[in-house]
Amino acid sequence: MSLLVVGSVAYDAVETPFGKCEKMLGGSASHFSISASFFTDVRIVAVVGGDFGSEELKIFNEHGIDTSDLERIPDGKTFRWGGRYDYDLNVAHTLYTDLNVFAEFQPKLSEASKGARLVFLGNIQPDLQRGVREQVANAELVALDTMNLWIDLARESLLRTIRGVDLVIINDAEARQLTEIPNLIKAAKMILSWGPKVLIVKRGEYGAALFTADSYFAIPAYPLESVFDPTGAGDTFAGGFMGYLSSQENLDEAAMRRAMIFGSVMASFNVEEFGTARTQRLTPDEINERFRAFKKITHFEEIPFKKAVQAAK
Amino acid sequence: MSLLVVGSVAYDAVETPFGKCEKMLGGSASHFSISASFFTDVRIVAVVGGDFGSEELKIFNEHGIDTSDLERIPDGKTFRWGGRYDYDLNVAHTLYTDLNVFAEFQPKLSEASKGARLVFLGNIQPDLQRGVREQVANAELVALDTMNLWIDLARESLLRTIRGVDLVIINDAEARQLTEIPNLIKAAKMILSWGPKVLIVKRGEYGAALFTADSYFAIPAYPLESVFDPTGAGDTFAGGFMGYLSSQENLDEAAMRRAMIFGSVMASFNVEEFGTARTQRLTPDEINERFRAFKKITHFEEIPFKKAVQAAK
Repeated sequence: MSLLVVGSVAYDAVETPFGKCEKMLGGSASHFSISASFFTDVRIVAVVGGDFGSEELKIFNEHGIDTSDLERIPDGKTFRWGGRYDYDLNVAHTLYTDLNVFAEFQPKLSEASKGARLVFLGNIQPDLQRGVREQVANAELVALDTMNLWIDLARESLLRTIRGVDLVIINDAEARQLTEIPNLIKAAKMILSWGPKVLIVKRGEYGAALFTADSYFAIPAYPLESVFDPTGAGDTFAGGFMGYLSSQENLDEAAMRRAMIFGSVMASFNVEEFGTARTQRLTPDEINERFRAFKKITHFEEIPFKKAVQAAK
Repeated sequence: MSLLVVGSVAYDAVETPFGKCEKMLGGSASHFSISASFFTDVRIVAVVGGDFGSEELKIFNEHGIDTSDLERIPDGKTFRWGGRYDYDLNVAHTLYTDLNVFAEFQPKLSEASKGARLVFLGNIQPDLQRGVREQVANAELVALDTMNLWIDLARESLLRTIRGVDLVIINDAEARQLTEIPNLIKAAKMILSWGPKVLIVKRGEYGAALFTADSYFAIPAYPLESVFDPTGAGDTFAGGFMGYLSSQENLDEAAMRRAMIFGSVMASFNVEEFGTARTQRLTPDEINERFRAFKKITHFEEIPFKKAVQAAK
C-alpha cells in the first residue's frame, strides 16, 4: 500500500470576500498528500527553495507523508501563487505566479517512489508527467490531472500523456475544452476512447461524475452554507479519491464509487478554511460522519411505479 | 387521487441546431399534464383560442387528461411562443411571445377541480396563482412554479403567493434571484423560512435538489448524449414529480425522493425530441427502466473507511 504524488509545493496568498491570508502552504502535491494521508501512506515528489520553512515540513511529517523525494534547492525560492476570489467562488483570479524553483522542476524518483502501487500525476507540464509515468511502469493505477494552460500550450504532449494513463481527473470545462465537444457525456466517451479506463469529471458545487466504458456514476457535492476558500479543492478531492483507493485491495468500480464519496468529503472540508487548515486537523470520525451523510443525501428506494386504476377516479 | 394543473396551453415554434418545428403543442400545462398522466388522473385549467386544433385535443384525450376546464374562446387565438436554441441548450432565446387569449386568462375552476387532492400552479402571473390557491383550500399539497419575469415584475405578489403554498419548484438561477443570496443552500433555507415545507431546485444538466427544514436530497440528471429540444423540460419534470406523488397515499419524504427521480426520468425523455413528441408515446416499462437506471447511477456501498496499519508499509 503506497501512493506517490508528483506536483507542486507552494506558498499561496489568497484573498476572498471573507478574509485574507498572506502566506500559507499550497500547491497540488501539498493539498493532495495531506488529504490522502488519512487513508494511506503517501510519498511526495516535488521541489522547494531554501525559504521553505520547518513549520510546513512539520505538517507533512505529522501526517506521515514521506518527503525523501522532496527536493530542496537552497539558493532558490519556493513557488508562489497569489489569487483572489470574488463572491463567485467558482472563479479564481490569479494575481501573480512566481514559478521560482518550480520553473526548472525535473521530478527525481527514488527506487522506493518507482515502486509505488498508485501514482497521481498532479497538474504539471505534460512532458514531465509522461517522464514520471515511464518510471512507474509497474504501478497498478496511474492517474493524471491537468489544466486549461496545458490544453492551450501543450495539447499534443498532453494527449500523448493521457493515452498512457489509467485514469484522468479533470473539471467539466477542461473536458469540454480538451475534446471540443459541448456535451459532457459525449466528451467523456471521447476521452475514454484515447486509452484511460476511467474518467472523473469534477463539477464544483454540482458534485462529480465517474465514467467508464460501460458505467456512469454521479454524486452531488456536500451541501455547504459557506465556502470560505476553494483553493486546492480539486487536489484535495483527488487526494481523498486516490488515498482511499490505495487503502483497498481491489481497485474495482465499487471501490472507485466509494472513493468518489471520500474525495468529495475531503474537498468539502478543504473549502471551509484557508489552505489546508481544516483538512490538516481532521479526524477519521469526522470523515466517516460526512461519508454517511452522503448516503442520506442520495438515498431513495427503488420501487417502480404502477399506475393506480383509472376506475379509482 | 386527482391532480390539477393551472397554466398555459400554447403553440410553440422552436429552432435548435438540430432542426426546426413550426408549430407544435406547448405551454406549461401541456407538458405538465402529459407527463403526469402516466402516473395519475390530471385535470387541466387553461385557455385556448378558436384555432386550437382537434389534433392537440386528441393528445390530451388519449392520455386521459380531463379538459372540462380548458376554456375555449372561439374568436381568440391560442398563445404562441417562438424560440431558438444555439449549441448551449441551457439558454432559450425568445423570438416572439404572442399572449393572445392568454393575456386575459382568468382561471375558472369547476367544483371537480376545486376538489383536487394535489394542485400545481404553473408559471403564470402570481395574483392569478394566488386566486387559484384560495379556491383549493382543501388540497393536500399545492405546488408553485415561477420565472424570472415575475421575480422582476411582481416580486411582492409572488412572495405573498409563495407564503401560501406547500412546495416551490424553481431553477437555481431563480432561487438566487428571488433571495438575492448566491449560496444555494442558504437561499433554500430562506425560501423555506417564508412558509413552504418543501423546495425543489432544478439544475438542468446537473440534476435537481430537494430541500426540507431538516433534510437535503440531490440527484444528477440522466446522462444524455444528445439533447434535442429542452423546451418544457421543467414542466415535464414537475408533471412527473406531482403525478407520481398523486399516485401515492403518503406524501412523505421517501415518496418525494422517488418522485424526484420520476420527474427527472420524464424530463430526460422530453428533451430527446421536439415538444411533447417523445413523452407522448412513452410506456410504463420505459419509465421504470430509466428509474432503475437512476439507482445504478447513484448507488454506492456505505462502508466507512479504516486506515490500514502503518506497519503494512
